[in-house]
Amino acid sequence: MTQKKIIVLGAGRSSSVLIDFLLDHAADSQWRLTVADIDLVLAQERIRKHPHGEAMAFDIKDTEQTKLLGGYDLVISMLPAAFHYTVAKVCAHAGVDMLTASYVSDEIRNLSDVFEQNGAGLIMEMGLDPGIDHMSAMKVLDRIRRAGAELRSFETFTGGLLAPSQDDNPWEYKFTWNPRNVVLAGQGYVKFLQQGRYKYIPYHRVFRRTEVIHIPEHGYFEGYANRDSLKYLDAYKLRGIQTLYRGTLRRTGFCKAWDVFVQLGATDDTFEMQAVNNMTHRQFINSFLSYNPSDSVELKLAHYLNLDMDSEEMYKLKWLGMFDEELVGMDQGTPAQILEHILKKKWTIQSDEKDMIIMWHKFEYVENGELKKLQSYMAVEGVDAVHTAMSKTVGLPLAVSAQLMLQGKLTVKGVHIPTEESIYRPVLEALEGYGVNFTETEIEH
Amino acid sequence: MTQKKIIVLGAGRSSSVLIDFLLDHAADSQWRLTVADIDLVLAQERIRKHPHGEAMAFDIKDTEQTKLLGGYDLVISMLPAAFHYTVAKVCAHAGVDMLTASYVSDEIRNLSDVFEQNGAGLIMEMGLDPGIDHMSAMKVLDRIRRAGAELRSFETFTGGLLAPSQDDNPWEYKFTWNPRNVVLAGQGYVKFLQQGRYKYIPYHRVFRRTEVIHIPEHGYFEGYANRDSLKYLDAYKLRGIQTLYRGTLRRTGFCKAWDVFVQLGATDDTFEMQAVNNMTHRQFINSFLSYNPSDSVELKLAHYLNLDMDSEEMYKLKWLGMFDEELVGMDQGTPAQILEHILKKKWTIQSDEKDMIIMWHKFEYVENGELKKLQSYMAVEGVDAVHTAMSKTVGLPLAVSAQLMLQGKLTVKGVHIPTEESIYRPVLEALEGYGVNFTETEIEH
Repeated sequence: MTQKKIIVLGAGRSSSVLIDFLLDHAADSQWRLTVADIDLVLAQERIRKHPHGEAMAFDIKDTEQTKLLGGYDLVISMLPAAFHYTVAKVCAHAGVDMLTASYVSDEIRNLSDVFEQNGAGLIMEMGLDPGIDHMSAMKVLDRIRRAGAELRSFETFTGGLLAPSQDDNPWEYKFTWNPRNVVLAGQGYVKFLQQGRYKYIPYHRVFRRTEVIHIPEHGYFEGYANRDSLKYLDAYKLRGIQTLYRGTLRRTGFCKAWDVFVQLGATDDTFEMQAVNNMTHRQFINSFLSYNPSDSVELKLAHYLNLDMDSEEMYKLKWLGMFDEELVGMDQGTPAQILEHILKKKWTIQSDEKDMIIMWHKFEYVENGELKKLQSYMAVEGVDAVHTAMSKTVGLPLAVSAQLMLQGKLTVKGVHIPTEESIYRPVLEALEGYGVNFTETEIEH
Repeated sequence: MTQKKIIVLGAGRSSSVLIDFLLDHAADSQWRLTVADIDLVLAQERIRKHPHGEAMAFDIKDTEQTKLLGGYDLVISMLPAAFHYTVAKVCAHAGVDMLTASYVSDEIRNLSDVFEQNGAGLIMEMGLDPGIDHMSAMKVLDRIRRAGAELRSFETFTGGLLAPSQDDNPWEYKFTWNPRNVVLAGQGYVKFLQQGRYKYIPYHRVFRRTEVIHIPEHGYFEGYANRDSLKYLDAYKLRGIQTLYRGTLRRTGFCKAWDVFVQLGATDDTFEMQAVNNMTHRQFINSFLSYNPSDSVELKLAHYLNLDMDSEEMYKLKWLGMFDEELVGMDQGTPAQILEHILKKKWTIQSDEKDMIIMWHKFEYVENGELKKLQSYMAVEGVDAVHTAMSKTVGLPLAVSAQLMLQGKLTVKGVHIPTEESIYRPVLEALEGYGVNFTETEIEH
């Protein structure tokens, strides 16, 4: 057995599970792992002086360095999505296998023939969402289709949440991944398919058009719609289906309270606010309300958004300190940047807190003239604020795919996402060994 | 007296008042007018074989043709705003005076020194809004300042409306200018100053944060906020003022009904809708509502937006035919494009209908320790659907400015907007002769 050379580009927090996995298997598998980052110290920290690992200072903009990627057996890119094309071009021409967790672009899809001609493959969208969502959904969808049944409806929801706890946080939520993405979530225009009709929801209505979802063993959640469900008509081969809806899970009550920020315009990221350096939390909220010398900010807000003063939403805002005369603590910022900064004061996960990833699919289909409903769901809890469920579910699909590819148990030619059985079957099987399991049950009528 | 050579670039509808004015005065004033358009026939129609006029086929992208602009005494550009810089560069270097009704850009401002060195001037923003608004506001603001008073508040509203009529249109509104701009109005983020506080309104709240405005002789209107009032802090030298608000006038009840489209997301212009070719008005509205097999579109809409079924808003929508099973009549389009197309069926001004321009300023200031309130307003009615108040109030400021410049009664060097007394005083005086008058009255406390 010859030694295989693997390189991971990018040593950020999201690479830690992947790198630990590869190092843990390096000795047995005869792997040599290089971790490359523009910050050499960060790369060294990830390698922890492991005998089968080495750290490397790496600049994706340095074309001489980039050429060296052609000398590896597998390249895993955890770089920002904009850099994947540069990496993919080198891998395609050198015939080196490659993996990423990012969305595939048209530009990269166009490299598929080059990868194939040189006997290599690239799998993208191999994380949690996209990644595990594709694989776990396609496994059931393909099975239903193979049985000759007619698919009527597919709904899928994923949430990055706090694990259930006893603390007093009325939102039951903290940031467990990029806070900026949470603040901007839902912006754009929602498109989906419901009972054969195209449906559209503008951003300012998304958090009031939620669905209540019950997941066995885990209770009730609410789901808000993701931006464009229609693109999954082709990705999942669902043309002709009546209902297609992708969404995000939150604990019940979250969305109506979050909608307060949306209604105020506090999540806008298009302009810099004035006089931020002296702004308090209370003034931040007040800047979105009418002037009135005699009414309190609380009363103006409650009246504007038709909330009771003793409502759950007002309590959630008070708990965050939104009405406090506390300085924001920034010199400048857009509403979204300022809101993120205020939220971090209360929504930063503490070292002993655990996050949780939950994914839920619902399938409706007609088999032998009978309408059937099936649900498939997964929940993973984190260990602590470092070993999160989020980093595990994003990193493990890449890690086990890398192992399968290096073992020759997963071979792809050209550019793929894991919607094909030859990819999702071995990867899902391997993930089960690490606690990433889906439970399937029929739903009673 | 030597003959002066004038060229008007662009012979579209918005140039008609300007061109008629220049031709009417051409003989007496010894002017030679060239009307230049990429469409020679359009230019010829505007000239009407007038002995002092000539039509010219003109392509702004033809650099040889553009150079010829240097041979005129005055260039008036009615081209789309993006082309003004090309024209201004030639005029600046050739030392030719120039006029436009468009907003000045930083790029054009940077040509100011070149204009000045070559003894010429460019006045931009010389239409209605921007144009008459600047001049009529600055006239009062400067007078108040000159009297040593302290400005506290300035609010200004302009509306392009239907003249009062006896017809049954419950909106009391039709398109009297670019329909697309009406559908997209308010998009972006509103910023203004109220009682010393910066205030912000997101698009989805703009049409519910209106002010009721009473204008003597004309009755009640409602005003919604324009995008960025703060830029007038510098343009009008208002730093230190407590309240600064610019808005648009509509007849009462318009905004709450228009808000239905905003809330639905029907004014969005960022994506193409699906299956437009078979879409009816009713289906267009339904595509923004939840699926429900047993409820009517009317009931779903009323419930979603908390409207009574017999409300004025529902009646306005019915009058527009929004619930009819009538084909939209387009093959593709964004929500905003489809909405515009549907609205045109009812909101196209008929040949015997008259439009109306109304502008209202309100000033508050402290003089000798006393708070004073002053209003200044103007209303102009159109003659018919061709000779509109809109085309008159946009075209006349350019026309009389051109006359004043050619007569040597208005001389500018460099790039200007008409916020300076040396410009607004003669232009406003000239406009009064054509029925563009402002009435000033004190407002009782």
